Amino acid sequence: MEIKLLLFLYSISLVFSSAISTTKIKPRFPSSIVAQQPENKLSLSSKTELYEEKFFTQILDHFNFHPQSYQTFQQRYLINDKYWGGPNNNSPIFVYTGNEGEIEWFAQNTGFLFDTAPLFKALLIFIEHRFYGKSIPFGATDSPVVVFGGSYGGMLAAWFRLKYPHVAIGALASSAPILNFENITSPYSFNNIITHDFRSESENCYKVIKGSWQEIEETAAKSGGSEILRKAFRICKNNTSLGSLGGWLETAYVYTAMTDYPTPSNFLNPLPAYPVKQMCKAIDDPKTGNNTFEKLYGAANIYYNYSGDATCFNLDDNSDPHGLGGWTWQACTEMILPTDGNNAESIFPESVWNYNDRAEYCKNGFNIEPRPNWITAEFGAHNIHRVLKRFGSNIVFFNGLRDPWSGGGVLKDISKSIVAIVAKEGAHHCRL
Amino acid sequence: MEIKLLLFLYSISLVFSSAISTTKIKPRFPSSIVAQQPENKLSLSSKTELYEEKFFTQILDHFNFHPQSYQTFQQRYLINDKYWGGPNNNSPIFVYTGNEGEIEWFAQNTGFLFDTAPLFKALLIFIEHRFYGKSIPFGATDSPVVVFGGSYGGMLAAWFRLKYPHVAIGALASSAPILNFENITSPYSFNNIITHDFRSESENCYKVIKGSWQEIEETAAKSGGSEILRKAFRICKNNTSLGSLGGWLETAYVYTAMTDYPTPSNFLNPLPAYPVKQMCKAIDDPKTGNNTFEKLYGAANIYYNYSGDATCFNLDDNSDPHGLGGWTWQACTEMILPTDGNNAESIFPESVWNYNDRAEYCKNGFNIEPRPNWITAEFGAHNIHRVLKRFGSNIVFFNGLRDPWSGGGVLKDISKSIVAIVAKEGAHHCRL
Repeated sequence: MEIKLLLFLYSISLVFSSAISTTKIKPRFPSSIVAQQPENKLSLSSKTELYEEKFFTQILDHFNFHPQSYQTFQQRYLINDKYWGGPNNNSPIFVYTGNEGEIEWFAQNTGFLFDTAPLFKALLIFIEHRFYGKSIPFGATDSPVVVFGGSYGGMLAAWFRLKYPHVAIGALASSAPILNFENITSPYSFNNIITHDFRSESENCYKVIKGSWQEIEETAAKSGGSEILRKAFRICKNNTSLGSLGGWLETAYVYTAMTDYPTPSNFLNPLPAYPVKQMCKAIDDPKTGNNTFEKLYGAANIYYNYSGDATCFNLDDNSDPHGLGGWTWQACTEMILPTDGNNAESIFPESVWNYNDRAEYCKNGFNIEPRPNWITAEFGAHNIHRVLKRFGSNIVFFNGLRDPWSGGGVLKDISKSIVAIVAKEGAHHCRL
Repeated sequence: MEIKLLLFLYSISLVFSSAISTTKIKPRFPSSIVAQQPENKLSLSSKTELYEEKFFTQILDHFNFHPQSYQTFQQRYLINDKYWGGPNNNSPIFVYTGNEGEIEWFAQNTGFLFDTAPLFKALLIFIEHRFYGKSIPFGATDSPVVVFGGSYGGMLAAWFRLKYPHVAIGALASSAPILNFENITSPYSFNNIITHDFRSESENCYKVIKGSWQEIEETAAKSGGSEILRKAFRICKNNTSLGSLGGWLETAYVYTAMTDYPTPSNFLNPLPAYPVKQMCKAIDDPKTGNNTFEKLYGAANIYYNYSGDATCFNLDDNSDPHGLGGWTWQACTEMILPTDGNNAESIFPESVWNYNDRAEYCKNGFNIEPRPNWITAEFGAHNIHRVLKRFGSNIVFFNGLRDPWSGGGVLKDISKSIVAIVAKEGAHHCRL
């Protein structure tokens, strides 16, 4: 497989994503990019030893012959041939199908490929989503290609194997919620798992968080309430509105549940090992008595200030250090994953998933109409066990059951070579 | 499977073909549409009993979110529910993936589906290429869909099964030259098989045709030669140039070889059973002595005038009764099948396949650059046995070895359920 062809084909699978959004991500549609700090502690400073950065001149749109589609972009990819046995030995190529963000961030948080490459004498390639560049053909047509991805990138890896079996002989899809579309997975599933994650630590922890939303609302509504909340949560003075407090707290719970790893990790923010347990410990702390806000502050502090450096919190922080901005565009086109329904038991305020809310948001933001049925039409997902039982091969689905996205994952073997590996205590993106 | 989704997905597989060409087909790139007259003698006049004609409102381009892609066309399809057991009995849906022409023509020349539908209690649907219309949802989500196609339509059927296994549980691809791309199949293969077809009837027949090209050329070059040729071939007086005589004869040989059926057939023109044998009989006829042109006339007469109605031949007949015009566009975009090389043994004048000739033609005609590697990049074809041995299922490839396209077909079983059926004496589109 020539690298050129591989990059070409990967770009095909991203055809919807070529428009770059400038709109910020709504916290309610959390980007799926999270990664466990690998055990070999790859750090940002070691990046020059991990890979070379290259660029490939990529065509804008492969799916029609309009002259403007022949425009090119520079697509970035990272390559590591340190362990490679070379094409003459049929040594494999491991390809990471880049997610919705900076490819270097993923490469630096993906220990699995660096751990396994020496064993397989594999060439490592991390292809960036939406970037384009100069290609270096390696003439490696006899090297089997295996694609790897986690979360959204895991969906891409699985779909790539299904659509391009002549390019990739297999895929490892970690925490890939390919069933979280349409009505296949309940829209309550995602938050139900988060609820379970916290409740499994302590019933009190769950109850405090569950009860807090009304208390926050009542406090905010009363005279002087804003000042009480500002003080309780150490909100910076330049924050003019506290309307995003709920979202700010929810984000902390959601991302902490997704990254509830047994080791310290560094996702959007640095976190301790078992961060959900740590949050509940703060909430259950007898020192805080009946002071709900002080309890929540302790929990939020674990997610937003584990380093202890912050003196106040900026709720309106719109910085996007990992380049996730494009997700809003994708969430308005084909990536319609119904995840934010909340039933009566939910740790979050009761609510129903409403596609029309998304459609309206997208109409206002992009003047675009999403296609909520596109993914299942193009890639399938309904009756996936029946469909793939005798079709396709060589896909590993990996899920951790504490990951809220696992509800939309493939949790049972489909065939001898389309298999599901499930870690009861695993979180998002684990094993990658 | 809802009919709506099916039509939607089929249209995806045709995304390249939405531009309608007004340029006429070059005879050297023969359209692949030929069909054997089915044994149950379906005739044009019976068409209203065979199916209902319906239309489906189809989106122009599913592969991006530009507003102009949301334009719609009326896509035509034909439907027959006479034999259908209905969705409650899981009765299957047999779908014919329409080729590059009028769908009614294919439906009326496809006996296989009408023969088998009663046995399987199948719903029959023939989807037309490039037309769009009104949809009638049947709510038949539990009915397994099987796709059928011959020639180019056979390639579409096989590719459809590979790309949309969640939509179609299987495919029957008759005379589908999916390996006739790039350098996978020799560009000499197509004409070698035609050569073999004629030579297998008689060595003299082969030699006469092989020697005739030079004789025609020499005659045309000499003074009064045009008149000799015009008279010998009964060419109509309004034909100003005889430059297309060679192509006119070649077309007769090519299409006759493709449709060398053991029964009378009606392809572009009506033909007797075993038409190659009939042509060679005319050429070998002792009555014509050494008169090459009279021999060729006899052969051409079988292809162009089996009914005996023609009083003269119009070499420049550009009529397109089956709506094949769009093939020129496809031959200039993705359908680059190298077929017209001729080695020293060929029945046609020696020549090499030259991609640059095609590229120049397309540049002049459409100002477009073909993508000769697109099909193999998107669908695969290199090492197809290795690739599909453990991937995919439920595809039957059917080929007749007298069909010049069979050289680019899958002639060996790939796995237990991706199988090749080969008929030594079969021609193009056979068994469909």
